[in-house]
Amino acid sequence: MRMTDLIAKKRDGERLTTEEIQWMIRGYVAGEIPDYQMSALCMAILFRGMDDAEILDLTMSMMHSGETLDLSPIRGVKADKHSTGGVGDKTSLVLCPMVAACGAKIAKMSGRGLGHTGGTIDKLESFPGFVTGISEERFFENVNRIGLAIAGQTAEVCPADKKLYALRDVTGTVPSIPLIVSSIMSKKLAAGADVIVLDVKCGSGAFMKTAEQARELAEGLTRVGRLAGRKCAAVITDMDEPLGFAVGNALEVKEAIDVLAGRTEAGELLELCLTLGSFMLSLGGLAADEEDARAKLKATIADGSALGKLAAMVEAQYGDPRAVYDTSLLPAASVTREVPSEASGYVAHIEAEDVGLVSMHLGGGRATKESAIDLAVGVVLKKKVGDRVEAGESLGTIHASDAQKAAEAAALLQKCYTLSAAPVEKAPFIKGVVR
Amino acid sequence: MRMTDLIAKKRDGERLTTEEIQWMIRGYVAGEIPDYQMSALCMAILFRGMDDAEILDLTMSMMHSGETLDLSPIRGVKADKHSTGGVGDKTSLVLCPMVAACGAKIAKMSGRGLGHTGGTIDKLESFPGFVTGISEERFFENVNRIGLAIAGQTAEVCPADKKLYALRDVTGTVPSIPLIVSSIMSKKLAAGADVIVLDVKCGSGAFMKTAEQARELAEGLTRVGRLAGRKCAAVITDMDEPLGFAVGNALEVKEAIDVLAGRTEAGELLELCLTLGSFMLSLGGLAADEEDARAKLKATIADGSALGKLAAMVEAQYGDPRAVYDTSLLPAASVTREVPSEASGYVAHIEAEDVGLVSMHLGGGRATKESAIDLAVGVVLKKKVGDRVEAGESLGTIHASDAQKAAEAAALLQKCYTLSAAPVEKAPFIKGVVR
Repeated sequence: MRMTDLIAKKRDGERLTTEEIQWMIRGYVAGEIPDYQMSALCMAILFRGMDDAEILDLTMSMMHSGETLDLSPIRGVKADKHSTGGVGDKTSLVLCPMVAACGAKIAKMSGRGLGHTGGTIDKLESFPGFVTGISEERFFENVNRIGLAIAGQTAEVCPADKKLYALRDVTGTVPSIPLIVSSIMSKKLAAGADVIVLDVKCGSGAFMKTAEQARELAEGLTRVGRLAGRKCAAVITDMDEPLGFAVGNALEVKEAIDVLAGRTEAGELLELCLTLGSFMLSLGGLAADEEDARAKLKATIADGSALGKLAAMVEAQYGDPRAVYDTSLLPAASVTREVPSEASGYVAHIEAEDVGLVSMHLGGGRATKESAIDLAVGVVLKKKVGDRVEAGESLGTIHASDAQKAAEAAALLQKCYTLSAAPVEKAPFIKGVVR
Repeated sequence: MRMTDLIAKKRDGERLTTEEIQWMIRGYVAGEIPDYQMSALCMAILFRGMDDAEILDLTMSMMHSGETLDLSPIRGVKADKHSTGGVGDKTSLVLCPMVAACGAKIAKMSGRGLGHTGGTIDKLESFPGFVTGISEERFFENVNRIGLAIAGQTAEVCPADKKLYALRDVTGTVPSIPLIVSSIMSKKLAAGADVIVLDVKCGSGAFMKTAEQARELAEGLTRVGRLAGRKCAAVITDMDEPLGFAVGNALEVKEAIDVLAGRTEAGELLELCLTLGSFMLSLGGLAADEEDARAKLKATIADGSALGKLAAMVEAQYGDPRAVYDTSLLPAASVTREVPSEASGYVAHIEAEDVGLVSMHLGGGRATKESAIDLAVGVVLKKKVGDRVEAGESLGTIHASDAQKAAEAAALLQKCYTLSAAPVEKAPFIKGVVR
C-alpha cells in the first residue's frame, strides 16, 4: 500500500477500505507516514467527505491506536456525555450527579481546558484537595460504590487522534464533519460507556456556526456511535451567548451547586441537564421513557440526592465535601467589580468566545498546556440575551486577583455585549435533538 | 501572516493576494513554512482552483525564487518551446535548428530525462564529445553567432518549483491546472524568451488524458505567459502512441536528423515542428503569417540550412558535427532484434508509457536521478496506429546491449500493442491549437 495512492483515491472521490484506513492510521502513529501526506489526505477528506463505513473505520482505527477503558468491572448501565465545547459549560457538574443519583454509572474521563473554554477537570479542582489523577482501581471502585467518578484523561488514549488533531489544527483541516466525528467518537468509544449522549453547541461561540452544520455533526456522531454498538442521542444547543451565568472555574462550580441544590430558577443549564439526562436514563433502561426520566431527575434535586452524589464523589477523590454545602469554602477572588452598561437597551448578543477570553485574561484559562490557572477568577453575568438593561446598570461581575486586571476585564466584558433598542426575542436554547 | 489562515482562505474558496502568495513561496523556500502546511494548501488549490491573477502571482513568485536568465546579450527574437513530456518526443532536435535557420534565436535550457520520458540534453549527448554544461558566456556567444544553443538547466532556476513539485509528487497534488501552469511557466519565464510555444500532450501516454483537460492546460499556460508579457501559443497533440518511430537517445537523434535531411516522408513529427515553428516565427515577426512561416521552415530542409544549424551547434558545444551527416558515427547498440507480431490485424493502440519503459528496461532511461544511461539502446517502431500487420511481421526493432535484454524487451514491446480485427481510423494528431 502507498499513501500517495490513498490520497489520490480520496481526492478522486473514491472510498477508502477498512484495510487502507487501518494501515494509514497505524503508519501515521508509527511515524512511517509523514505529516505532509496526512495533511493532504485530510484536505481531500474535507472536500470529498467519507461515508459512514469509512468514518466508522477511521474512528475504530484511532480508538485502537491507544488504550481503551474496559468498564466491565463496573456493574450496571455505564453512561457518558460529551460536549463539543462552549463557554460557561458546567453541564457535567450538574448532569453527572443527577444521573448517578438515578442509578446510572458515570465513569467519566475528562480533559483540561485550553484557550477560551474551561475543562471539567480544572473546575473540579476548585474543591480543596480534589485529585483527578486517581488510579484505575480506585476509579472503578468509586464508580461501583458511589455511581460517579471523573478522572483526567490519560495520555495513552487515542494517540492517533492527538497527533492528527494537532496536525489538522495547523493545516486548515479542522472543519470536516467526518474528521470531527471520528476524533470525538474515537475517544468516547475508548472510554467504554454503553450509553453516550452528545451536546453539540451551535452559534457564534461554537465551532458549528449554523443549525444545519450542528445537525449534520449531531447525526454523524450518533450514527457512528450506533454502528459501533452503543446507544446514542444528541442535543443541539445554542451558543450565541455563554451557557448559564458564570464563566470561570470555582464560579462555575458554585453555579452548578446552586442548580443541584434547587436554589436557582429553572434555567437553560437545568433544562439541558434534564434533556441529556432523560436520554441517558431512557436509553439505559433506567426509566420507562423520557418523561419518566425527567421526573426522576427532578426528584434528585428535590430530595438532595444529586447534591449528595457530588459530595460523595468529591470526598472519594480526596476533596473537601463541605464545600458542596458551603460554597464560601471554594476559592474566592480578592477583588470584585461590577461592569456598568454604557447604554440602555435590550441584550441582543453576548459574544461567548470573547467572554471566555475575559476569563482567560483574568488568569482563569490556559494559553498553553503548561499554563497555571487561577481557579477563583472569572465573570458572572447578570444580563443575558433578551434582558432589558439600563445605562449604568451592571451587566455582570468581574472576579479578579487585583484591581488593575478587574478594570481591564470590565472594559473587555462591555465589548462582549451588543444591545438593541427594540426588544429582543430570544431564540430557543435547545435547537434540536437527534434520538 | 499565518499559513493556517491562507490555507483556510483557499479552502473556503477565497482568492489569495499577491502579498500572501509571495510571502508563502518565500517562506516555503526558506524552510519556515513546513511541508505539511504546503501540501494541505496544494490540495485546497486542487479543489478550489486559482484565478489567472493568482496563477500569475504564483508563477512569478516561483520564478523569482531563483536565478532568471537575462537574454538581453542576445540580439534578435528569442524563442523557446516547451513540451509537457511524451515518449519518443524528439521535437526540439528538429524544431530548434529549423527555426534558428529562419532567424530566430534559440537559447534553450533543457532537462534530463527521468522515468519513461527522455530529456533533450541526454539525447544531444549522443553526439560524441557534446558538452551541455557550457558557461553562460559561451552559451550567449553561441546563440548570437549560430542562433542556437541547448544547455542543461542549472540547479538555481526556480528552487521553489523544485521543492514544491517533489512535495506534490507524493501528496496527490500533481493534477491541478493552476499548479501545473505555475510550475511550467515559472521555469519558462525564468529562461527569458520573448516567444514561448507549448506542446501539450494528450492521451493515454500523457499526463492529460482527455482533450478537454489538455485544452484547459494549454489555455492556462498561454494566458499566464501573455499576462507576464510574453508571446505565447500552444498546440495540443496526440500521445495515444509514441511520437514518431524511435524511442531511445541516439535512435531519436537519428530520426530527427533523417527529418531535417528530408530523408523521411512528411509525418507527424515534421507536422508538429512546422506548426510549432510557424507560431514561433509569426509571433516573433520573422514571418508574415503562419503560412509564410511554414514555407520558410520547409525551405530550411530543402536547402540544408536546418541540418547546417544542428551541425554548427554540435560543433560549438564541442561535439563531432560529422555525426550530423553520417549517423553511423552515433552510438550504436551491439544487438538488434525484430519483434514479430503474434497475430494479424490493425494496430489500434500503442501504450506510449510502456514503450518508454521498454527503453528504460534496456538501459536507455533513468530510474533515479543518479542512474547512468546507455545512449545506444532503445526501440524503433515499424508499425503505428492504423497500420495493417500480419502475424510474424515485425512490429519494431529492439536495439540492446545484449541478447538477453533484447529478448526481454521484445516480449515487453509485444504487450504494448493492441490489435483490432477491423481497420482502425487514426485520430488526428494535432487535436487543437491555442493562438
